Amino acid sequence: MSTIATQLGIVKRNIPRPDRAAIERLSAFGAATVHEALGRLGLMKPTLRPIFPGAHVCGPAVTVLLHPGDNWMLHVAAEQIQPGDVVVAAVTADCTDGYFGDLLATSFQARGALGLVIDGGVRDVKDLSAMKFPVWSKAISAKGTIKATIGSVNVAVVCAGAAVEPGDVIVADDDGVVVVPSAAVAATAEAASLREANEAEKRRKLASGILGLDMYGMRGPLEKAGLKYID
Amino acid sequence: MSTIATQLGIVKRNIPRPDRAAIERLSAFGAATVHEALGRLGLMKPTLRPIFPGAHVCGPAVTVLLHPGDNWMLHVAAEQIQPGDVVVAAVTADCTDGYFGDLLATSFQARGALGLVIDGGVRDVKDLSAMKFPVWSKAISAKGTIKATIGSVNVAVVCAGAAVEPGDVIVADDDGVVVVPSAAVAATAEAASLREANEAEKRRKLASGILGLDMYGMRGPLEKAGLKYID
Amino acid sequence: MSTIATQLGIVKRNIPRPDRAAIERLSAFGAATVHEALGRLGLMKPTLRPIFPGAHVCGPAVTVLLHPGDNWMLHVAAEQIQPGDVVVAAVTADCTDGYFGDLLATSFQARGALGLVIDGGVRDVKDLSAMKFPVWSKAISAKGTIKATIGSVNVAVVCAGAAVEPGDVIVADDDGVVVVPSAAVAATAEAASLREANEAEKRRKLASGILGLDMYGMRGPLEKAGLKYID
Amino acid sequence: MSTIATQLGIVKRNIPRPDRAAIERLSAFGAATVHEALGRLGLMKPTLRPIFPGAHVCGPAVTVLLHPGDNWMLHVAAEQIQPGDVVVAAVTADCTDGYFGDLLATSFQARGALGLVIDGGVRDVKDLSAMKFPVWSKAISAKGTIKATIGSVNVAVVCAGAAVEPGDVIVADDDGVVVVPSAAVAATAEAASLREANEAEKRRKLASGILGLDMYGMRGPLEKAGLKYID
Amino acid sequence: MSTIATQLGIVKRNIPRPDRAAIERLSAFGAATVHEALGRLGLMKPTLRPIFPGAHVCGPAVTVLLHPGDNWMLHVAAEQIQPGDVVVAAVTADCTDGYFGDLLATSFQARGALGLVIDGGVRDVKDLSAMKFPVWSKAISAKGTIKATIGSVNVAVVCAGAAVEPGDVIVADDDGVVVVPSAAVAATAEAASLREANEAEKRRKLASGILGLDMYGMRGPLEKAGLKYID
Amino acid sequence: MSTIATQLGIVKRNIPRPDRAAIERLSAFGAATVHEALGRLGLMKPTLRPIFPGAHVCGPAVTVLLHPGDNWMLHVAAEQIQPGDVVVAAVTADCTDGYFGDLLATSFQARGALGLVIDGGVRDVKDLSAMKFPVWSKAISAKGTIKATIGSVNVAVVCAGAAVEPGDVIVADDDGVVVVPSAAVAATAEAASLREANEAEKRRKLASGILGLDMYGMRGPLEKAGLKYID
Repeated sequence: MSTIATQLGIVKRNIPRPDRAAIERLSAFGAATVHEALGRLGLMKPTLRPIFPGAHVCGPAVTVLLHPGDNWMLHVAAEQIQPGDVVVAAVTADCTDGYFGDLLATSFQARGALGLVIDGGVRDVKDLSAMKFPVWSKAISAKGTIKATIGSVNVAVVCAGAAVEPGDVIVADDDGVVVVPSAAVAATAEAASLREANEAEKRRKLASGILGLDMYGMRGPLEKAGLKYID
Repeated sequence: MSTIATQLGIVKRNIPRPDRAAIERLSAFGAATVHEALGRLGLMKPTLRPIFPGAHVCGPAVTVLLHPGDNWMLHVAAEQIQPGDVVVAAVTADCTDGYFGDLLATSFQARGALGLVIDGGVRDVKDLSAMKFPVWSKAISAKGTIKATIGSVNVAVVCAGAAVEPGDVIVADDDGVVVVPSAAVAATAEAASLREANEAEKRRKLASGILGLDMYGMRGPLEKAGLKYID
Repeated sequence: MSTIATQLGIVKRNIPRPDRAAIERLSAFGAATVHEALGRLGLMKPTLRPIFPGAHVCGPAVTVLLHPGDNWMLHVAAEQIQPGDVVVAAVTADCTDGYFGDLLATSFQARGALGLVIDGGVRDVKDLSAMKFPVWSKAISAKGTIKATIGSVNVAVVCAGAAVEPGDVIVADDDGVVVVPSAAVAATAEAASLREANEAEKRRKLASGILGLDMYGMRGPLEKAGLKYID
Repeated sequence: MSTIATQLGIVKRNIPRPDRAAIERLSAFGAATVHEALGRLGLMKPTLRPIFPGAHVCGPAVTVLLHPGDNWMLHVAAEQIQPGDVVVAAVTADCTDGYFGDLLATSFQARGALGLVIDGGVRDVKDLSAMKFPVWSKAISAKGTIKATIGSVNVAVVCAGAAVEPGDVIVADDDGVVVVPSAAVAATAEAASLREANEAEKRRKLASGILGLDMYGMRGPLEKAGLKYID
Repeated sequence: MSTIATQLGIVKRNIPRPDRAAIERLSAFGAATVHEALGRLGLMKPTLRPIFPGAHVCGPAVTVLLHPGDNWMLHVAAEQIQPGDVVVAAVTADCTDGYFGDLLATSFQARGALGLVIDGGVRDVKDLSAMKFPVWSKAISAKGTIKATIGSVNVAVVCAGAAVEPGDVIVADDDGVVVVPSAAVAATAEAASLREANEAEKRRKLASGILGLDMYGMRGPLEKAGLKYID
Repeated sequence: MSTIATQLGIVKRNIPRPDRAAIERLSAFGAATVHEALGRLGLMKPTLRPIFPGAHVCGPAVTVLLHPGDNWMLHVAAEQIQPGDVVVAAVTADCTDGYFGDLLATSFQARGALGLVIDGGVRDVKDLSAMKFPVWSKAISAKGTIKATIGSVNVAVVCAGAAVEPGDVIVADDDGVVVVPSAAVAATAEAASLREANEAEKRRKLASGILGLDMYGMRGPLEKAGLKYID
């Protein structure tokens, strides 16, 4: 059963967080590699973009469910943050309002949050960049929000097309945001590690002019698929 | 843990379907009423639209996870359909290709499917309309698809922004598509029934010219909120 | 000075409505003709679409300013409707929620409203179609709204890219929604009338095979502009 | 060399039109079938939609290149129409203005045009529907256009993502718009015919409950691809 | 009455500009703060983005109404610019063409303009960045425009969803663009000042780990709203 | 005849590349100037954006036709790259997947490619930026692709709304991407050169405060067009 639809108005205090060492290992890899290691699943939509380049976070999700134009639950979420967490905020309808700014960022950073992923808007981006507090959002908007309707914290949410359970690990960088199920963190780190193991060698070969066609043995399969060369 | 990300290449044969009598009771209500009864949750994005007006389905979800431009798993899903089911197809990336047409519809209808909800495109819409096989999709496209990569059937998916587990009940009509968690079907039908109980009375009052301001007792709260009348 | 930004929390009761006879004359013309008669101005964005084909309304605007996900002020607006009015609802941020359904439509219709134009979503569209209550909206969505924050009624608003003052006349049909400033209604009706005066003759000529190139005397200007015919 | 970019301000009078008998044969098939018969190529984007359901045209393209907000060249194009042609209008930049209405439609219809495909907006859709003159467009807009800048007629254009040469055959119906290169019309009709030859038999089998999995022999390939069934 | 629709083909030379000292005071604040100080109104859509980060302008609007693909009136507007002004360009239909480039920027800058806000496209962005001439636009496009149709200068316009009168003050930075009615500039500066007065103290508290929940006294209201904590 | 639709599964090895000296001359100009020099044609949609600012490439196109979610043909294309080429990748349907990353970039760069233009997504953008390998794409996405279906290399394609033949010259910078037909390279460089010849003089005049109204002699035409000045 989807647990999402029955959990409005709830704050879950104790959520399982994956083993810190496993998260540490996973944090060595970028979103693209992790997404491949997961079997090309778990990716949020590319409509989410970082507010400044170069950020890279990896940590357990504290999830928040917001209503359009209402950021009340972000204050509630702040209390549930533990050092190393990444806050993931979903909204019950599409809305680009600026739910988050420098004051909330100060609070989140004081609690140890690594960053915020929000399927909505953010503001004070100049301050947030100066604070080096990364946010992945679908809009930048000066539009303020109200505090009138309760949502939930640490329930299952859908954020930018990806299902997120509290405690799932978020890997976000310039390429996007990936959700790694908490039980899969260690295996994903392992798979990512294997993936990258021979990348240096591949990169060296390709840089020397060897073609992927040869390095990956693609000529046969392409011919079998019917590819024809003409002059 | 999100169960989505680890279930690629899987077909689950036995899924729990909610009690048929509860589904029957729920089927008396439209998507808007059911969505309210669920606490305004569980709605797919309004980008999904029916291919013809007036359709209304209510049934357990057989879920499918597709890759962009590849409809192979819809054939696999057909075998898992039981009479009264609604097929829900998610795609791992945004793609408007026409994954579904009159041949698949013939097969789905023969298996007893009530309709299809797909976060992608559909084609042969004239034939589908003539067959009275409803589809809620985000696009109509003549673009065909291939059969090259396996996805999954009856795993948890995110479709048009809503999480769906196999066996969750789908309520879809001209207003959109709502997902009711399987364990909440009976309670939602009950809540919807209570909601509609006095709607006829309300409608009669409003039709007679009585204002919602008075019928709902809004004047006091509005004044307290600071609303001012000027001439 | 823009009067929009300082009028939150206000309901204006007495708004000037243009002369009924002038509105009556204007109502003979469709949105495209009226838009031309106004000098190709005053058009809302084509993202607004009617929920059923064939509707055509022409009446003074009762304006409403809503917050995202909050339809409280539509109830307040109902009291300000006079027979023949068209309600125009703007939202302070993009939001596709279903702000309006069959109960509000019953109330609006009882008050004599001809229709609703809303830069947001609408629901119960099957019922609204059966009631023949037209709505021009940017989305159809089962998503319900709350009643928590006050906006305004009968203040200047921007709706779907067009500025609307209360009492401006709204002309809406299958082609879209045009706003005619209240002081320009008579002149616009006159201009529209002149525009259509010889349309029947033009249509007859074109139907007989005479080309617009010749009927409008375009060959000279095209040649002067440099158009070249080749074989 | 792309011939597009050097042909502004030109009207080509004599364009090759494919053999009428071949067009006649192709006209038996819908856009989806033709698109498959062409190897899943030649499709315009699904953003183009018909203004009324049920239309189906098949005819040689008279192409037009327009500037944003300027429909002058549609009048020039009218003269180049021969009975059975389909006008294809591209715009040099995205613009949803209503370039085409009932007067131009009267002229086009008098010249024998079957319909219009335009990567822009259209208006007077109620009249066009009554005239049964089909238009596939990306928007409906009352917004009028000017006649100030020359474009071209019967040059190569890109319309809604597809390259079109004058004389290419356009097949359009409820599923979308496909461009068939003039030299490929006969072969495409033949391929479409073969495609549909055994569709009735397939439809009968699927309607009887036989699965595509068995009819198409998919079980082996799916197993080889790694698909696993669980209970 | 909306004055917009009757003012095509007009250039207003003398527009009232707010008191320079008041503008100076307002210029201390960013778009987000000003938007809040205005009661969360007056914001343009977040589709407008600055072409380089870090710009911040505050000045009276010289408004321009353009036609799609035509930038003639920007040259007319240049003459109306006074030092400290911000040009605001609206377009009568959606169009992403590059209306503005380095030559016009040179002219605007020579006249003393602080920047440009345009609901269209801009080009030569590398040069504009080097010149430190900020532009907020909805697109960057190399597409040039023509000079064929007259619009207006210094009439009321709707730009990116916000109504702007000439002389209204534009506040724009990385968070977006806000329109402050000319008569409200002093009051808005005052309100913004009050808003920021205790922000430093709040920031200090939040940075020390004090929660917004406690600092703002939210626990009681949240409990009353029904929020429940579970473990 | 459009040659596009009949060339699936083909790799053309020998394509004509324009004279290197002509390309060299053209490379002195930016996309906006080249687009004007071409008569305001040949521009790709502004949805394509560079992954880092400041890049500028000018070189013959090696074209690729991909299927949604499948990047197999990019490996095939690598072999066809000659030093100074720009790869142009079209996709048969809209898809934002990340078709290209640092390994392919290493290979392309080793072959001498100047950059990539793709009507799809790209990933590893941090690495690509560090490598100074520019990509113009419509999305950044960590989403990986498969290698299952053959497309074509060096056939005519439509990429982001522009027709491209192999060997056409691509000019791309911060303003966008322009396609120059191979036979028009020399003439376009000449036209661009003439265009820029007196730009320095114009810039100097405008910087000195001379208005475009006077420099371009616009006052007469504006008056004739009906422009009125009011106070």
